[in-house]
Amino acid sequence: MRKAFHEELERVAQTLVEMTRMASSAMTRATTALLDADIHLADSVIAADAEIDARRAELDLMSFDLLARQQPVATDLRVIVTSMRMSADLERMGDLARHVAKVARLRYPASAVPAELRGTILQMGQVAERIVEKAGSVIAARDVVAAQQVERDDDAMDDLHRELVSAVTGGPWEHGTEAAVDVVLLARYYERFADHAVSVAHRVVWLVTGEFDPESEGSHEDTEDATALR
Amino acid sequence: MRKAFHEELERVAQTLVEMTRMASSAMTRATTALLDADIHLADSVIAADAEIDARRAELDLMSFDLLARQQPVATDLRVIVTSMRMSADLERMGDLARHVAKVARLRYPASAVPAELRGTILQMGQVAERIVEKAGSVIAARDVVAAQQVERDDDAMDDLHRELVSAVTGGPWEHGTEAAVDVVLLARYYERFADHAVSVAHRVVWLVTGEFDPESEGSHEDTEDATALR
Repeated sequence: MRKAFHEELERVAQTLVEMTRMASSAMTRATTALLDADIHLADSVIAADAEIDARRAELDLMSFDLLARQQPVATDLRVIVTSMRMSADLERMGDLARHVAKVARLRYPASAVPAELRGTILQMGQVAERIVEKAGSVIAARDVVAAQQVERDDDAMDDLHRELVSAVTGGPWEHGTEAAVDVVLLARYYERFADHAVSVAHRVVWLVTGEFDPESEGSHEDTEDATALR
Repeated sequence: MRKAFHEELERVAQTLVEMTRMASSAMTRATTALLDADIHLADSVIAADAEIDARRAELDLMSFDLLARQQPVATDLRVIVTSMRMSADLERMGDLARHVAKVARLRYPASAVPAELRGTILQMGQVAERIVEKAGSVIAARDVVAAQQVERDDDAMDDLHRELVSAVTGGPWEHGTEAAVDVVLLARYYERFADHAVSVAHRVVWLVTGEFDPESEGSHEDTEDATALR
């Protein structure tokens, strides 16, 4: 019985890791769709979001069922409650990738990103890919040290976010209001994506150390939001 | 024992209702701070967000403790799991009110909102106040019909959001890039606030009807996001 239970918990963890891969792939492809004005790729990201949502629903049913049938306590209970929260973060990351793809779609056949900001968006895409893959490793290995590296990636994302917002509002802007709005919303989507990856990592730390930290309990605070940055 | 348990569940519900009041007050005061360029009011909203976060942490500890000690099944288990999700929505609503207050603070002594858009922002504040108060009643009374009214308020919010975004990007815009960015981000904060209120209402419906609806399980989808609207 206990063995079966732990196999089920292992399946929950594997599904979470799989969700990190789906979120990573979605954001990476959304970034390419955006920079290459590739509408087919954008559409595929938008369509694939339903799969992430379905995986989340499946995972939450599994978790709920485990709570009801197994009546777990202590660590096992923490693992299940935390898994339900991580699945919410990962689902939201999929939504944010879909938002990026929608901007690409909306501006097709043009690109939403002015030439001189393409490099910054490319880097945001790379940091997004890296941070969610690292979050996946943190889940798989319960690696508290790797969780700290996730924070550093988040700092890098905040810097890139700051860079984009100040490019739009910090001096002369030649690309019109629509492009300004696109760029600032894109910046926010990437930054929130990284925030949720930090949340996932924090939750694993809570799982391992058992320290209940209200700060890490909530979705990672976006104190570094666009308004605070300007 | 069962009586004590149900008293504890009742305390969870009361704390959730209290959080809806805190979120309502925060967004209402943030809107006033924004429209009146009142920096003291803005600061008080920013400071008060910590209280919402603390209430959420307290609620989650209570819920976790109930899961561990009482080993609930069926409806009781659903109530506790759902409460933890509602507390996350309500905490995020507090964050969004704080974001609005931060925009007010950033532009002080000016107002971030151009004169001709003040009416729309005022209405968004009113809809925000109404929708979260209704969500509170839905929690308190487990009223499935009232939950449907929450959807209608959300539709009203989406219309106002659409109005603001098209004011910024749909024609000539005389107020500069910074104001454009402010208005679009503000529109997004109000719209996401309403989305989370819808999530809360959906979760109560799930609780009452027992229907597991993946759509209502996630945070309410912001398909009506700024990018989709333009």
